[in-house]
Amino acid sequence: MAPSRIVDPTSFQSNDANGLKAKALQETCEQPDIFYQDKRSIEVIRGLVLDCCQQWGTGHGGSALGMAAIAQTLWRHILRYDPAHPDWFDRDRFVLSNGHVGILQYILLHLSGYEKWTMQQLKGYCHPTALDFTSMTKTHPEIEFDGLDMSTGPLGQGIANAVGMAIANMNLRATFNTDQSEIILGRVYCSTGDACLQEGVALEAISLAGHLKLDNLTLIYDNNGIQCDGPITLTTSEDVNEKMRACGWYIIDVFDGNHDVANIYTAITYAKQHRGSPVFINIRTTIGHGTDKAGTHKAHHTSFGGQTVDQCKRKWNLDPQQTHYVPQEVRTYWAEIPKRGKILYQQWERNLEKYQMACPERAEQLLLKVHGRLPSGWMRLLHEFQPPNHPIPIRQASGQIHDYLWDTVSFIAGSADLSEPNFMLKGGQQRFGSPSHHDGMSYSGRYIHYGVREHAMMAIANGISAYSRGAFIPVTATFAMFQLYGAPAIRMSALARLPAIHIGTHDSIAEGACGPTHQPIELVNLFRSMPDILHIRPGDAEEAIGAWMMALSFDGPSIIGLNRHAVPMQSGTNRHKMQRGAYVLNKGVGYQVTLVSTGGDLFHAVEAAQLLKDCGVPTRIVSMPCMRRFEEQDEEYQRMVFPWDGRPVVSFEAMSTDGWAKYATASIGQLGFGTTVAAEAVYPHFKLTAEDVKERVLKYLDGLLGRNAHTVPWRNI
Amino acid sequence: MAPSRIVDPTSFQSNDANGLKAKALQETCEQPDIFYQDKRSIEVIRGLVLDCCQQWGTGHGGSALGMAAIAQTLWRHILRYDPAHPDWFDRDRFVLSNGHVGILQYILLHLSGYEKWTMQQLKGYCHPTALDFTSMTKTHPEIEFDGLDMSTGPLGQGIANAVGMAIANMNLRATFNTDQSEIILGRVYCSTGDACLQEGVALEAISLAGHLKLDNLTLIYDNNGIQCDGPITLTTSEDVNEKMRACGWYIIDVFDGNHDVANIYTAITYAKQHRGSPVFINIRTTIGHGTDKAGTHKAHHTSFGGQTVDQCKRKWNLDPQQTHYVPQEVRTYWAEIPKRGKILYQQWERNLEKYQMACPERAEQLLLKVHGRLPSGWMRLLHEFQPPNHPIPIRQASGQIHDYLWDTVSFIAGSADLSEPNFMLKGGQQRFGSPSHHDGMSYSGRYIHYGVREHAMMAIANGISAYSRGAFIPVTATFAMFQLYGAPAIRMSALARLPAIHIGTHDSIAEGACGPTHQPIELVNLFRSMPDILHIRPGDAEEAIGAWMMALSFDGPSIIGLNRHAVPMQSGTNRHKMQRGAYVLNKGVGYQVTLVSTGGDLFHAVEAAQLLKDCGVPTRIVSMPCMRRFEEQDEEYQRMVFPWDGRPVVSFEAMSTDGWAKYATASIGQLGFGTTVAAEAVYPHFKLTAEDVKERVLKYLDGLLGRNAHTVPWRNI
Repeated sequence: MAPSRIVDPTSFQSNDANGLKAKALQETCEQPDIFYQDKRSIEVIRGLVLDCCQQWGTGHGGSALGMAAIAQTLWRHILRYDPAHPDWFDRDRFVLSNGHVGILQYILLHLSGYEKWTMQQLKGYCHPTALDFTSMTKTHPEIEFDGLDMSTGPLGQGIANAVGMAIANMNLRATFNTDQSEIILGRVYCSTGDACLQEGVALEAISLAGHLKLDNLTLIYDNNGIQCDGPITLTTSEDVNEKMRACGWYIIDVFDGNHDVANIYTAITYAKQHRGSPVFINIRTTIGHGTDKAGTHKAHHTSFGGQTVDQCKRKWNLDPQQTHYVPQEVRTYWAEIPKRGKILYQQWERNLEKYQMACPERAEQLLLKVHGRLPSGWMRLLHEFQPPNHPIPIRQASGQIHDYLWDTVSFIAGSADLSEPNFMLKGGQQRFGSPSHHDGMSYSGRYIHYGVREHAMMAIANGISAYSRGAFIPVTATFAMFQLYGAPAIRMSALARLPAIHIGTHDSIAEGACGPTHQPIELVNLFRSMPDILHIRPGDAEEAIGAWMMALSFDGPSIIGLNRHAVPMQSGTNRHKMQRGAYVLNKGVGYQVTLVSTGGDLFHAVEAAQLLKDCGVPTRIVSMPCMRRFEEQDEEYQRMVFPWDGRPVVSFEAMSTDGWAKYATASIGQLGFGTTVAAEAVYPHFKLTAEDVKERVLKYLDGLLGRNAHTVPWRNI
Repeated sequence: MAPSRIVDPTSFQSNDANGLKAKALQETCEQPDIFYQDKRSIEVIRGLVLDCCQQWGTGHGGSALGMAAIAQTLWRHILRYDPAHPDWFDRDRFVLSNGHVGILQYILLHLSGYEKWTMQQLKGYCHPTALDFTSMTKTHPEIEFDGLDMSTGPLGQGIANAVGMAIANMNLRATFNTDQSEIILGRVYCSTGDACLQEGVALEAISLAGHLKLDNLTLIYDNNGIQCDGPITLTTSEDVNEKMRACGWYIIDVFDGNHDVANIYTAITYAKQHRGSPVFINIRTTIGHGTDKAGTHKAHHTSFGGQTVDQCKRKWNLDPQQTHYVPQEVRTYWAEIPKRGKILYQQWERNLEKYQMACPERAEQLLLKVHGRLPSGWMRLLHEFQPPNHPIPIRQASGQIHDYLWDTVSFIAGSADLSEPNFMLKGGQQRFGSPSHHDGMSYSGRYIHYGVREHAMMAIANGISAYSRGAFIPVTATFAMFQLYGAPAIRMSALARLPAIHIGTHDSIAEGACGPTHQPIELVNLFRSMPDILHIRPGDAEEAIGAWMMALSFDGPSIIGLNRHAVPMQSGTNRHKMQRGAYVLNKGVGYQVTLVSTGGDLFHAVEAAQLLKDCGVPTRIVSMPCMRRFEEQDEEYQRMVFPWDGRPVVSFEAMSTDGWAKYATASIGQLGFGTTVAAEAVYPHFKLTAEDVKERVLKYLDGLLGRNAHTVPWRNI
């Protein structure tokens, strides 16, 4: 049996009309015989897909059947990786943006020889208790398992993650590759279904990737034309290729993605050689290929039924009596991959040794990235940093710290078109981008003008972080309110535990002039209750330093909420003490009430405490920049900060009070949306000035009549 | 002085190469003399923009200067409206997606004769206290003020809002226009800057609008090439026209948007006649036109300085000594508008009378929409609805109610590609769309296949709702987790108080099989603390009925959170009692502890209460489907539900416990992300079964040692 076609350049089209393309295609296809064995392997992969969806009666097998030839081509012929070293720094990255196709990737990881991806693992796919909770075959891929470069699932984000990885890779190439040594060769691949291409986050990232000319990035479109609701013609009729082309991408079509390994191979190989733009490969496939549900949305997630499995296996020369079976000839064919991987890995190790000899200083920098370590000294810098002792906006203090750390810490930072109000670009940061666009831009730059693309910015940050843990610390910035646009990506950074720092300036109604559309009231409760992320709201420049300490020390993402307006340094704030999340700022000797506050509201609380003291009500102050950190403290410390001794505790934030009842006996906050006035007017309007806080607390104390404050229901006062 | 050009069809280009275009242009330009006076009016508008930014030292004047000619053309020549009847049902709608240009729209509303838009109002723009909080000249437009069809500000959403309005308008045309009477003539216009076109929400909506062939929609692009960070070339290099064309839009270019009223007029007039697709008019303008900051990002938001204002006024034949001045000739020119508006309005009233004669039944339906009333009988239907008394998923119960109300209530509903799991399309809903796409689709259909475009779906719902308050009730559906993608639009619906119902199925870790990426833990805290919105989590089919009652009775948006799996009917649940937000389900005679729970977790709590009773611990049950509604109840009712008498109250939800301390003395919930196993396994894994709840409560009670539960700090147990 011979392969039906090896390469037929005329069977795919592109926007390159001058003939160079066809020539390149011929040159890239010098291996005429390799694809015969792929056909057999693809049959086996499809058999495994059917078994894995049949074994527990469910699964997302439809696109896995359709994409089998694509996956075969990628893992057997294209991707640069070593199954024995899943975290190899210079491997190619692959993001499965259509994360529900996870089972296909797991099968490929099994075939290609990743030790942990056993057949037993494949048998756990869709197991009701996930093999007693030890299964790696999650419905959607999770980054903590070998060979999975990104957690995906929520659609669209994977494309932006891949753009982030391509940015990181491009920066590494520009920084470390020399005329003598191309130490960075890895590239970035991403697969997408129809759905991801409908999601805004992907469309934002696609636009930016085209602008940045990320020619290390290949996006492979599993074009099967089917979604959960039915044919995509129910909901879209755009010309995807033209749209991608308008965004600056190079387009290649492949028309028989179900079988045509030769053309898939040729297209991707061409994409590797293409320079000056990312490449989009539009590959037509059939969802549920081979089954009786082929080409319909009924194939999207389902088991296919014993009879169908049986028929398919016969058609594909597989033994219907056997399940989870890989014939020896296919095992043999895949056995080349660990060998090739070993050679690639060893080559790189040798190249790295040569690189160390040739350019020892750069090599040292590179090794820090390989090992995911921050350069030493950043913490000392933060210990030493002296904040200005005049009132400045906390956002400005944060910006100064960002500038100050810029040369030491491997940030890749940017803002969603608010660089100036976010104070992100004051330190002369070199900008990342194509030198052909703007003077002074280069791929070794680390500052990105993200445009008004908040969601993509956050998801790109995840890709930068995931490229190699600790190699870069992505920093994003926008107004705090617009972090809501990117919240789904922030959530993924928490879930995947990817270090990243998200700066949100102009928080709370203190934003003022732009009005309620720009004033977050409720957002803090989303982020404070999101697992595995720190929400930090520093109260002055000193706490801003502590916030950066906390964020940079944390092995996951942080959000730093910063107010707009100048606040004075507060007596007693301390960058070190705040690492416990909350601390006593003022003991208020003989105190009758504790005021707890955060961020830009802290100084109002401190003023209110003074006013209360002047009225004969000694008041204690707790600053609580990070609830999560405080919750992690031992009971003894928590009771030291909040003794729960019957004396009232009043929280004050110009935001929702919903999360406060666990610490406070009463709360002062902003229960409705804000309004459009100057910040100086907004606090008086909502009765949130220090004087108002004093009055409200006095009234509350009067109402208590000396009772144990905990025996009276918490309420907004 | 004569106009420099009347019409030069060659000065704009389009994708229509066959000459019909030029002919149409000539035909549409039969008014050769009107544009001379526009030139003068534009000068006056620009003078007012400068004054309004100068008066309080700030403002967003840059794009307002650039768009003055566009605005002049729209309000003087194009838009169908009557300043005396701002809410006229058949007016054209206009959405300022680039909401920061609000001041320009306010000036036009003043000139065109809206009574409330006085010069005094213009003088309040950027006033530090917004004229003692009475100002209508907010930085961003707010829908509650006359002449403003939508609240905008967060970028990108306005375009999706306009798509929603165009959907509503298209449905009205298809439903009510007859061969004899075109009772619906209004169209939808939207303006956008560069930034909105970068936002994913806009890109999603643009793709859908092209697919739906919304030829009643014109999107006007203020192409000034400048963003906050600098020239847009910092962050984008896409071919916008080609991208829009690929999405199915018709493109018209205008090259001198600063002055060329004739061509702007011709382009928009052509757009009105164009059939079969929405139209994108790409108009080149100069930000800060005329000032020394023209063409730079320094013009974006600023005052321009006295000297610049002076120079500009001289250049524009305005008296530099005067501010906020409209010369008589311009007043006279605009005086035509109220007259024309009156004629248009009266014509429509007469047409409506004729329509009532000709087709009384349809007219009755139309009048319900005009007056924004739900057809009578929906509440009775919900009173009468009998839920099945076998266990069914609450999402399925909700779907049955949705089907049941479909013919009565004017829903425009849809799902983000999850129609089946959301149970949204079981009732034979007719689908909205072009008949040319799919059999059975039509513009009188009311069900939309939104595609995987959650954010656009939510923002489109806002547009449908805002088209005419109460005319339609938009319903969106997706998995609860992916409501986070659309949360910025949900927030806008709350802020603008737009009735809409957002269905989120598969909530909490009970989602199970899709894994932690699909399991909301924290999201409920965002929506519960968002002002002016109801978050409702019904506990069985009976409460699902109550949830629809609550949502349909509310003059704002609601979110209904629904679990995935079948739950039995709970004894004591009551659609009416739940309208108070929380109620006692089981008095637990002689109770020692109260369990409060919601949604899909309620039946676990009820089971746990039985187990506790069996252990000799009588337990009371509170169902709390809507915290917001409960918070609105009087103190007496609140104390009846939660007596705060020292007896412990334990909350139970398989989600974050962060908001519960205000009612509960201890909480049981899900503190980390979920995992990928069947729902039957996920509760045991996280120790959240009824048996676990019983054990946890018993241990907690033991630890209390009979103390007043309120005197012990709240904690997760």
